[in-house]
Amino acid sequence: MQGLSCGTSNIVGVRFAIYPMADNFVEIIKGALEEVDTSKVWMQTDDVTTCVRGRSEHVFDVAKAIFIHAAKTGTHVVFSGTFSIGCPGDSEGDTYMSENDERLNEEKSQQESVEAASHFALYPMDNPNYMQVIADQCAVAQEHGTFTKGVHYASRLDGDANKVFHTLETAFVNASKTKERAHVTMTAHISANSPSKKDNAS
Amino acid sequence: MQGLSCGTSNIVGVRFAIYPMADNFVEIIKGALEEVDTSKVWMQTDDVTTCVRGRSEHVFDVAKAIFIHAAKTGTHVVFSGTFSIGCPGDSEGDTYMSENDERLNEEKSQQESVEAASHFALYPMDNPNYMQVIADQCAVAQEHGTFTKGVHYASRLDGDANKVFHTLETAFVNASKTKERAHVTMTAHISANSPSKKDNAS
Ligand SMILES: [Ca+2]
Repeated sequence: MQGLSCGTSNIVGVRFAIYPMADNFVEIIKGALEEVDTSKVWMQTDDVTTCVRGRSEHVFDVAKAIFIHAAKTGTHVVFSGTFSIGCPGDSEGDTYMSENDERLNEEKSQQESVEAASHFALYPMDNPNYMQVIADQCAVAQEHGTFTKGVHYASRLDGDANKVFHTLETAFVNASKTKERAHVTMTAHISANSPSKKDNAS
Repeated sequence: MQGLSCGTSNIVGVRFAIYPMADNFVEIIKGALEEVDTSKVWMQTDDVTTCVRGRSEHVFDVAKAIFIHAAKTGTHVVFSGTFSIGCPGDSEGDTYMSENDERLNEEKSQQESVEAASHFALYPMDNPNYMQVIADQCAVAQEHGTFTKGVHYASRLDGDANKVFHTLETAFVNASKTKERAHVTMTAHISANSPSKKDNAS
């Protein structure tokens, strides 16, 4: 919840939705969810988006797995969401912070080969140095080999979905360490199986 | 483009996509675009998102019109995007800043009655007072009658799409005036015709 009070835990959250561009979108979403173990995260869905909260590694593990298992159907599927750390606003989900770091969905996600294209943007809040934080993480994406180019208001990543999510997670976690109790958000649109011509010329 | 240099114009941009959850999604998007006059904005689409830049009123006018004309088909359609001001990164599209303020799509958009639900979040950058800026704009949404409730990391708006977009535009423009050459971004997921049960109990 956006409000005046910030919590002090380092719980990570993502508010997102999966958009399968198909008449059977409900079936695709439900099918993906059935393949994902969400027992290490707090999760709540309404008619607009889904919110997942917990330890950073489990939030990214679950987000990636839902996207990959929806996208492996071959349907044009998009993940669109915002990752946040540093301002939970309340303590809901804090019990999930005591889970261990073993990722429940990583092995199964790594078995799939889904080509993904992403536009992402980092927003380090209340930080005069924020443009440097962004530039540093674009450099990290370049080292990962997933960075394609900057576009207006965002940066483009291309590659296997597992690699693209690895870059997103690394950039987000690195940015969250640039300041004491940093409040950082990161938006990401991640697309698979688009019928449009790829625009990944760097 | 995210980078180290910020421009000085007050050009507004939105990077977004329209997601119709239907097999004929391409047809729905193309149909909506055919009904929208985009001559007062700079516009570029790739396989992941579309970027629209220009004067604030025309960016919101075009974004709203594309969403409304896609949603009026009755298909479950989502607009997902990020509005930005204060860091264009370059001057592309600056010629559009000399357009007058007459909105080209407003009349036609107002003729449609589309019920919308939105989760939005404001990100005033490099501003120690940013939580207050956010709270003030949630208060504005409450005055508009569109504010439903806070959710984790976002605020929920419900109502006619024209009213929901009016609140989004007002909140964004107000937030951009809270600081000299403010860099402000605002994410918005806007959904119509969802088969899910509405979660708009305040
Ligand atoms: Ca159809």
